[in-house]
Amino acid sequence: MNMRNIAYNNIVFTDGFWKKRYELNKDVSIKSVRDRFEETSRFEALRFTYEEGKPKPHVFYDSDVAKWMEGVAYLVHSGNECEEELKLCRELIASMKEHQREDGYMNSYFQQVAPEKIFTDKNAHELYCAGHLLEAAIAYDIATGEHDFLDVMKKYFDYIEKCFIIDKTSSFSVPGHEEIELALLKMYEYCGEKKYLDMAMFFINTRGTCDKAMPPMLRNCYDQNEMPVRELQEAEGHAVRAVYLYTAMAEAARITEDKKLMDAASRLFDNILTSRMYVSGGVGSSKAGEAFTVKYDLPNLEAYSETCAAIGYMLFALAMQKVSLDTKYPEVIERIMHNALLVSTSLDGTSFFYQNPLEIHLASVGKETCMAPANRSSLPPQERYKVFQCSCCPPNINRIFARIGDFFFMERDDALIINQYTALRANTTKAKIVIDTQYPVSGKMNITISGNKYKQIYLRKPAWCDEYTIDAQHTLKDGYIILDACENMDINLDFNMKPYFVETNPAVRENSGKVALFYGPTLYCLERIDNDYDLGAVCVSIEKALETAKVFIPADYYMNNIDLEGYVDEYFPSLYRIAKLNSNNKILHFRPYWTFANRGKTDMKVWIRGTK
Amino acid sequence: MNMRNIAYNNIVFTDGFWKKRYELNKDVSIKSVRDRFEETSRFEALRFTYEEGKPKPHVFYDSDVAKWMEGVAYLVHSGNECEEELKLCRELIASMKEHQREDGYMNSYFQQVAPEKIFTDKNAHELYCAGHLLEAAIAYDIATGEHDFLDVMKKYFDYIEKCFIIDKTSSFSVPGHEEIELALLKMYEYCGEKKYLDMAMFFINTRGTCDKAMPPMLRNCYDQNEMPVRELQEAEGHAVRAVYLYTAMAEAARITEDKKLMDAASRLFDNILTSRMYVSGGVGSSKAGEAFTVKYDLPNLEAYSETCAAIGYMLFALAMQKVSLDTKYPEVIERIMHNALLVSTSLDGTSFFYQNPLEIHLASVGKETCMAPANRSSLPPQERYKVFQCSCCPPNINRIFARIGDFFFMERDDALIINQYTALRANTTKAKIVIDTQYPVSGKMNITISGNKYKQIYLRKPAWCDEYTIDAQHTLKDGYIILDACENMDINLDFNMKPYFVETNPAVRENSGKVALFYGPTLYCLERIDNDYDLGAVCVSIEKALETAKVFIPADYYMNNIDLEGYVDEYFPSLYRIAKLNSNNKILHFRPYWTFANRGKTDMKVWIRGTK
Repeated sequence: MNMRNIAYNNIVFTDGFWKKRYELNKDVSIKSVRDRFEETSRFEALRFTYEEGKPKPHVFYDSDVAKWMEGVAYLVHSGNECEEELKLCRELIASMKEHQREDGYMNSYFQQVAPEKIFTDKNAHELYCAGHLLEAAIAYDIATGEHDFLDVMKKYFDYIEKCFIIDKTSSFSVPGHEEIELALLKMYEYCGEKKYLDMAMFFINTRGTCDKAMPPMLRNCYDQNEMPVRELQEAEGHAVRAVYLYTAMAEAARITEDKKLMDAASRLFDNILTSRMYVSGGVGSSKAGEAFTVKYDLPNLEAYSETCAAIGYMLFALAMQKVSLDTKYPEVIERIMHNALLVSTSLDGTSFFYQNPLEIHLASVGKETCMAPANRSSLPPQERYKVFQCSCCPPNINRIFARIGDFFFMERDDALIINQYTALRANTTKAKIVIDTQYPVSGKMNITISGNKYKQIYLRKPAWCDEYTIDAQHTLKDGYIILDACENMDINLDFNMKPYFVETNPAVRENSGKVALFYGPTLYCLERIDNDYDLGAVCVSIEKALETAKVFIPADYYMNNIDLEGYVDEYFPSLYRIAKLNSNNKILHFRPYWTFANRGKTDMKVWIRGTK
Repeated sequence: MNMRNIAYNNIVFTDGFWKKRYELNKDVSIKSVRDRFEETSRFEALRFTYEEGKPKPHVFYDSDVAKWMEGVAYLVHSGNECEEELKLCRELIASMKEHQREDGYMNSYFQQVAPEKIFTDKNAHELYCAGHLLEAAIAYDIATGEHDFLDVMKKYFDYIEKCFIIDKTSSFSVPGHEEIELALLKMYEYCGEKKYLDMAMFFINTRGTCDKAMPPMLRNCYDQNEMPVRELQEAEGHAVRAVYLYTAMAEAARITEDKKLMDAASRLFDNILTSRMYVSGGVGSSKAGEAFTVKYDLPNLEAYSETCAAIGYMLFALAMQKVSLDTKYPEVIERIMHNALLVSTSLDGTSFFYQNPLEIHLASVGKETCMAPANRSSLPPQERYKVFQCSCCPPNINRIFARIGDFFFMERDDALIINQYTALRANTTKAKIVIDTQYPVSGKMNITISGNKYKQIYLRKPAWCDEYTIDAQHTLKDGYIILDACENMDINLDFNMKPYFVETNPAVRENSGKVALFYGPTLYCLERIDNDYDLGAVCVSIEKALETAKVFIPADYYMNNIDLEGYVDEYFPSLYRIAKLNSNNKILHFRPYWTFANRGKTDMKVWIRGTK
C-alpha cells in the first residue's frame, strides 16, 4: 500500500488547541523535568561523578535522561531554539563519549555501581536504557547533524551484538523490559544498515523461546516471554513492556513484510481495543505487575493506567496506522491524545501522573483505619507529582508532546490522509496544507490545500460524529470522507460537535448502567469541588441531560466545560430503607477529564449512572 | 425497667422454619465440626498428648473446642440426647482436670508447646481461650449438673486473677482479643460471686489505658485499645474483638448500672447500625485486620463480613435488647438470624463460610494473570469449606444455633415481649405461649397464650411491614403492637409479607443506584446458574418488578424463591459505544441470599441496579 507517515517536523501548529499544549511542554514541562532530574542526580549519573556517599545512580536513570534528550532533539528539529537544553545535551554526550568503555559498553549505573553485574540480570533495564539512548541519539543526529552521540551508540550496539548475538556471553537472551527492539528498527530505518534490523529481529524472535525464569512472584507472561511472539493471543503482563513489544512487532512486520508477525500485532491491538482499554485510552488496569489483567477488568478507582502505557499504545496505533487505512488506529490515537495523554500533565505543565485513576473517592483512601498507614491498601495518588522515584513517565511525556505532529498525517502516492485535526500548517512533498480550527473546542474547520499533487484527500470522520457538513463533493467510506483533489482546495468542514454519552460493554462489571460524557474526542468528569453532593449519588437521564447541556469555555483553560441537568439521590439518614429511589434535579458541572486534580484533592468521577 | 430474657431452654421449636435450622445444626453441623476437629487434632490438643512429630496444637484450639462443647451443652440443656457428644465432653473435661497445672493454669497450647511464654503475648489468644472455656463450663454446668468443668475453670480464673490483677506478673494487662469479659460477666450472673464481676470490670476498665504497643503494622484501635472504652466513638479495629468488647460493655453496664458505659455501648451499636452494617447484618468489611473501616465502606465483592462478627453483633443486640424496648435491637437480630447467620452454613449443614461476600464475580478471581497465584490479590472464597485452619466460625455457628431460642422473647413484670417469630411452644413463669406460623415463608401466624398473668403482650412489628392485620384490639407504639392481655388469648396476626426492594444511603459508594430484593426479613440474590446473562447487566424498574413478582417454594429448601420481571442490558460487541442504554425484558430468578453457593461456584449478586 506504500503508506508513509508525515513526520512532525513538517508541521507547524498555529493558533489553536495543540499549539498551546505543544508550547506548554516546550516552555514549561521540559524545563521542569530538567530541573527535577538535576535535583535528583539523574544527569549527574551520566556525568560519571558517582562516588561513595553521593546519591547512587539507579538502573533506569539513563533511560530517563535519554527520553528527555530525545524530546529536546525533536523540539530542535522542529526549529525551536532550546539553547540551554542543547548545551546540557552536549555536556552529557561528551561525558558519555569520555566514559564509554573501551569495548563499547555504556551504562552509567553498571559502570559506576555494579560493573561485575553487566549483562547478568534481564530485569535490570540495561538494554531498555540502551534502547532509549539509541532513540535519543538518532533524534539528536537528525536534529543537530552532530554525530558524537550516535557514534557512541553505534559502538555500544556493536558490543551488545557481540555479547548477545555473536558470542552469547550475556546471562540472558532477551531483556526483561522491551524497548531496544523499537530503537533498533528506528536505527535501521534511519541509517539503512541491515545489522540493526537483524539485531531487532533477534530480540523479537528469541523472546518466548528461552529465558524462562522470572522471579517466583511472577509468571513469564509478565514480560511477554511465555511463547514466541507470533503466537501471542492476548495482551498480557506488564503493560508498558507489552505495548512496546507489540509496537516493535508491528514496525518489524511492516519492514520485513512478515504476515504472521503482523497478524499477531493486529490481533493484540484488537485485543486491547475490544476488552482492555479505558475509555480515556489508558491501558494496564492493575497495579500488581503494572499489568494487563483479564478482559473487561477496568476498575476506575484502582485504575493503574500508567501514562507510559498509554503513550506506548499510541505508538502501537501509529505503527499500525502506517500499514492500514483503518480508522480504528487514528481513533485510538485521538482518544489517547485528548484524554490519557493530556491528563498526565498538570494545567501548569510542572507536575505529572504516573497512574491515571478514572475515579477519586477520598473517603476510600487509607480506609483501613486500624492498619498503620504503610499497610493500608493503596489507591493511586490523587494529585500529580513534580518528582518521582520511578520517573519514566515525565520524560516520556516530554518526548511525545515534542513529536505530537507525527500523529496527524499519512500519505500514499495518490492520497493525503488527514487523521487528526488542529490548527496547523503542514508541508508535504506534494502539497501545502493549512487547517484553521478550534478543534476539539469546536468541530468546525477550514482546510486549504495548495499546490496539490495528490489525487485524493482522505479526511477521517471521527467515530463519534454522526452528522457532518462539508462544502465539497465527497464519498464516505470506512470512516473516511474522500475528496477528489485538485491543485488548490478550500474546504469548510463541520463535525457538528455536541455533548454525547458513551456506554460500556455490559461485561465490564465496573461500568454497568453507567455513562461517560464526551464532547468530540474529549472525555468529561465531575469533580466534587464543583458539585455539592456525593458523586456516587449522581444520575442522568441521557436524552434530557443532553437537551439541557450548556457548553462554555471557562476562565482557566482553553476547552469547554459542560453544565447539564441531572439528578441527585435523595438523602436519608439511615443506612438502608425500603427503596423509593427519589431524586432531586440538579445542574451537574462537568469539566474535561484531563483537567481534573488541578485544584487540590477532591473526589472525581467519570462514569455516572444513566437511564434512558 | 427490669427486663429479663426468656432463655432458650424454655422454648421448643415446633414444625416450622427454625426447627429445621435448629435440627440441621444438632443433627449434622455439630457432628460435622466434631469430625473435622478430630481430624485436625483439635480435641487431641486437650487430650494433652502432644509430642514432637505430632500435629502441633495452635494457640486458639482451646477456644474452638470450647465453643463446640458450649453448643453441646445448650443442646443437652434443651433436652436433646447428644450421648456421643457428651461422652467426648466428659473425656476432655477429665483430661483438663488431670493436666491442669498445680497453680491453676490451663491452656493446651502453652502447657504443651510454649510453657515459657505463658501470659507474655497479649495477641496469643490465651485469655480469649480462657473466656471460651469458662463460657462452655458454665453452659455445661447448667446443662448437666456436673461441676468438674466449672471447678477446673474456677481454679484457672483464680490464677488469672492472681497474675493479672493481684500480683500483676503478666506481661500485658488486657488481652489482644476480647472474650474473657463476656465469660466473667456470665459467671457472675450464674454464681453471683462479685469477684468475677470485678475481674470483668478490671479488663473492661483497663483497656485503653496501658498496653499501647501493637505490632508495627497495626494501630492500637485494632484491639480497641486506643482510649478508655467509655470514650470510644466509632466502631473500629478487628470486628470480632470490637463487638465482643461492646457486648461485654453493654452487659456490664446493665449489671452495674453504669450510665456512661451504657452510653458508649449504645453509641457504638448505633455507629455500626447507621454506617457499617451490610444489608445482611454482616459487619467488618475489610480483610486487612479483619476490621471495621471508615463509615459507609461496604464493598460487596471484597466483603469480609466474618461469620463470628455477625454472631458477635447479634449478641451485642441481645445485650442491648435486655435494657431497652427499642425495636432496632430485635430488628438487627432478625436481620442477622435470617441472613448473615443462615448464609454461614451450607444447605446440607456440613460446610461453612468464614468470610461472607455479597457478590461473586468469578472473572475477578485471580484476575492478575501475570502474577504467580500466591501473589494475586485475593477475594473471599466462592464456596463454603468443611475444614478451616482458623476455625473460630464453625463452632461459633454450632453454639449460636443451639441457643437461638434466646433471641425470641423478653419479659417485664407486667409484659411479655415477642421479638422474633417462628413455630414454637414456650413456657415462662407467667404464661404458656404457642406460635403457629410458617414465618418467614409467610407473615401469617396464630399465637395462643394460656394461663397468662402478664398485663400486656408486645408483638414486634417488623420494620419492613407497613400493613398488618390482627384480630385483637391493640395500640401500635414504637414498633410494637401492644395488646391488653387476658388469661387465655388466641390471636391471628398477618404481617402481610410480600417482596420489596431496599436501597442504601447515597453515601455508600458501592451501592449507589442499586436495590436489594427482600421478602419479609429475608434478603435475596441472583445466582448466575439460574440466570443466563451477566449479573452486572441486570436492572429492575422497582414498581413494575414487584407487580410481576411470583413467590414460590422450590424443591430443594424450605423458603420462597422469587421470579420477577427485570431488564438485561443489550449486548454489543465493542468495548464502548455511544450510549443507547437499550435493554431487553427478562424474568429474573432470585433465591434467598443465604442459599447461595450450594451448587458449585457461580456468580452471585445482591445489589442490582434499580430505577423507579
